Amino acid sequence: MTWVTDDNVSLLTDLYELTMAASYHAHDMNDQATFDLFVRHLPKQRHFLISCGIEHALDYLDRLHFDNDAIAYLRSLGIFEDGFLEFLADLEFTGEVRAIPEGEAVFDGEPILSVTAPLIEAQIVETFLLNCIMFETMIASKAARVSIAAQDRRFVDFSLRRDQGADAGLRAARASFVGGAVATSNVLAGRVFGIPVNGTMAHSYVMAFEDEVKAFRYFLRDFPQDTVLLIDTFDVEEGARRAAQVANELGPEGVTLSGVRIDSGDLATLTRSVRKILDEAGLGEVKIVLSGDLDEHRIEALLVDGVPVDAFGVGTQMGTSGDAPSLGGAYKLVEDAHGPKIKLSTGKATFPGRKQVYRVSGDHSYDHDVIALEDEAPPGGVALLHQVMVEGERCRESDSLAAIQRRCRNTLSLLPERLRSLDQSAEVYPVRHSPKLEGLIRRMQSEAG
Amino acid sequence: MTWVTDDNVSLLTDLYELTMAASYHAHDMNDQATFDLFVRHLPKQRHFLISCGIEHALDYLDRLHFDNDAIAYLRSLGIFEDGFLEFLADLEFTGEVRAIPEGEAVFDGEPILSVTAPLIEAQIVETFLLNCIMFETMIASKAARVSIAAQDRRFVDFSLRRDQGADAGLRAARASFVGGAVATSNVLAGRVFGIPVNGTMAHSYVMAFEDEVKAFRYFLRDFPQDTVLLIDTFDVEEGARRAAQVANELGPEGVTLSGVRIDSGDLATLTRSVRKILDEAGLGEVKIVLSGDLDEHRIEALLVDGVPVDAFGVGTQMGTSGDAPSLGGAYKLVEDAHGPKIKLSTGKATFPGRKQVYRVSGDHSYDHDVIALEDEAPPGGVALLHQVMVEGERCRESDSLAAIQRRCRNTLSLLPERLRSLDQSAEVYPVRHSPKLEGLIRRMQSEAG
Repeated sequence: MTWVTDDNVSLLTDLYELTMAASYHAHDMNDQATFDLFVRHLPKQRHFLISCGIEHALDYLDRLHFDNDAIAYLRSLGIFEDGFLEFLADLEFTGEVRAIPEGEAVFDGEPILSVTAPLIEAQIVETFLLNCIMFETMIASKAARVSIAAQDRRFVDFSLRRDQGADAGLRAARASFVGGAVATSNVLAGRVFGIPVNGTMAHSYVMAFEDEVKAFRYFLRDFPQDTVLLIDTFDVEEGARRAAQVANELGPEGVTLSGVRIDSGDLATLTRSVRKILDEAGLGEVKIVLSGDLDEHRIEALLVDGVPVDAFGVGTQMGTSGDAPSLGGAYKLVEDAHGPKIKLSTGKATFPGRKQVYRVSGDHSYDHDVIALEDEAPPGGVALLHQVMVEGERCRESDSLAAIQRRCRNTLSLLPERLRSLDQSAEVYPVRHSPKLEGLIRRMQSEAG
Repeated sequence: MTWVTDDNVSLLTDLYELTMAASYHAHDMNDQATFDLFVRHLPKQRHFLISCGIEHALDYLDRLHFDNDAIAYLRSLGIFEDGFLEFLADLEFTGEVRAIPEGEAVFDGEPILSVTAPLIEAQIVETFLLNCIMFETMIASKAARVSIAAQDRRFVDFSLRRDQGADAGLRAARASFVGGAVATSNVLAGRVFGIPVNGTMAHSYVMAFEDEVKAFRYFLRDFPQDTVLLIDTFDVEEGARRAAQVANELGPEGVTLSGVRIDSGDLATLTRSVRKILDEAGLGEVKIVLSGDLDEHRIEALLVDGVPVDAFGVGTQMGTSGDAPSLGGAYKLVEDAHGPKIKLSTGKATFPGRKQVYRVSGDHSYDHDVIALEDEAPPGGVALLHQVMVEGERCRESDSLAAIQRRCRNTLSLLPERLRSLDQSAEVYPVRHSPKLEGLIRRMQSEAG
């Protein structure tokens, strides 16, 4: 099976990146240029984004190369000059990268990542950077909403089977963890990222035995600790009684039932009656885990309703960002050897110059952000864009995933309360331009007009 | 950067697949079992699906193995017995697979793929098979709708930058081609799948020159054939006049402008006025390509409105199946050594037994499908499930991608007209149960009840 690898990922780009690069090469246009990667307008279902995917983007830039196979394929297209292909064969990324750290909140128009490099290098990495950073940012942002909805309840990423492909599954597990998930069902994500892995059982397991009691008994004996039984294969309340029966029967053997999971039906009603069944069986410590097409809205509704649930398995909606499955990310030339650049297409304007983003806080929460030019006096607040790569080499140690998750928890706690609402109608967070940036925009608009 | 590979993909599974497998192993429960993979209910925005992803699923099954690293990681979790880990280290897929060929239409509840294998093998492949087949089927189905909307116009996959991760990009290009795209912007998909690659230029290219005329002149000289110029960086109509000017200026050098692309603004109005500008410049052959968040509905509206567009670049909405970004695929135990199996959970019932799907046609189009038990007399029509793997080995040569695309075109032409509507309210295609299957379901329901 063909997978994307460090060796072929250089071709995971739009053809036009390479034709433009060839033209720049033919005309010796390879001076330093700066491109900003940002989301112009947040989807109406989102009041904030959580930066994610930077680590993978830097890995990609670090290892960028066109191997013999890539060059041979490009030659076979019959549109590239040999001189350009030789140039590509020697190409490495040598530029500077600044980024907003993973786990930090970002808003409309703020550069999440900014690349300054020789024009050709900066151009050909566009497609991959957008693909990588927008996807992971989108999933971390969705998971952060789930985290807000779940309050102090734990939630686990169950999305792998519904994710859009294999590495979407791997990276959705990481991004969900960044957003607040405590674990994932995805074993490879456990292996690769060190995320705790977690799981229960499937209906097919229960169906493989003559009856539910036998299935529960076997599974609990095989996994006597931290085990969650799935109780909705046949009838949920009957399943709860059987789980309780088996838990009490096996207690003397040292077996502890950790929880039961309900994956279908009217979750609110069923959870209440299962809680009662478990409590009456003396199993007040046994937790109830809910799953089955949950998202932040359903979780919020269950908790507002006082449903006695302890944890959630969240799959499809989180792993695909189901209500907003793409982000309109842009990667735009903002400055080159001739100075700042601006684009005026209808609805797709870009802001010129190398920038810095400042976050200004009030007493207990963020108040507003300011996008300023890099070379102007800081308007106050905390600068969010950090230099992460210089001359093609990483210049900061990677944060641990646990540290990134903590950063996200912290940024969520500092969001103004209205932005923590899951409602679509929340006010937009104020992102201002510094007077100097605003002046530059006006001047360039009037020159172009 | 960590990628999914043939060596680690065995861990790309939910932990519960492995805990269930360990329990089956502990109790010598490894008789043959049959699991069906199907979509219980189509999203309301879909009247048909196009089978896709089978090829990759078979590749995965063909190569399934747990390498030393995988075993070491599983051992580190401290929940698996050594005997099970030794068993896993030797595990290969030895089962039978039947599937509906890629490119063929499929409907609610029809097994797209059916696996018969020793229970443990059949169980642990669940997560990957769902991830792989549902994603590719979802994208091929969306692309097929775009194909219906585009009528005889060509459309190209531009989705890579918005796809949900790297191999989503690679496989979305293939699935879009199956559904009817003529090319992709994704160079790696060209390299790997042999799909024609295609591209224009970005706004940043135009902005890298002092003016648009110079950008157009350079690019056309560098790529004198089959070149499409992007004309909306500043003003679309001005851009069209400049493109025409440069095309006419360079004509004597043997340069031919193939088309212009408009990526923003009021596409209907702009296309009409650009057509006029080009025609008046004697460039009636120059095509107009539209892009910018297009989907089947916007394409249909443009064509119904008589907009003189020649081709489309379709990105985000096709590559993420934006209006229905997940399919509720299920992979369910339907038969084991004890006979047919049934699941009764609310809203998640499954149908028992090894099945065959028959498609019955009327004079000009499909009339209805029948899901029957495999061992009953065929009810007429064409049998859709083909044996593709026996004893873990592929038993059919893979279809070429061109043949799969033709199969899809053919199946779309045979869909009842109402199913080709993009409207949500189309009637559902009739999928019947054979009397013998229906009898089995009733008997098992009453036994369980």
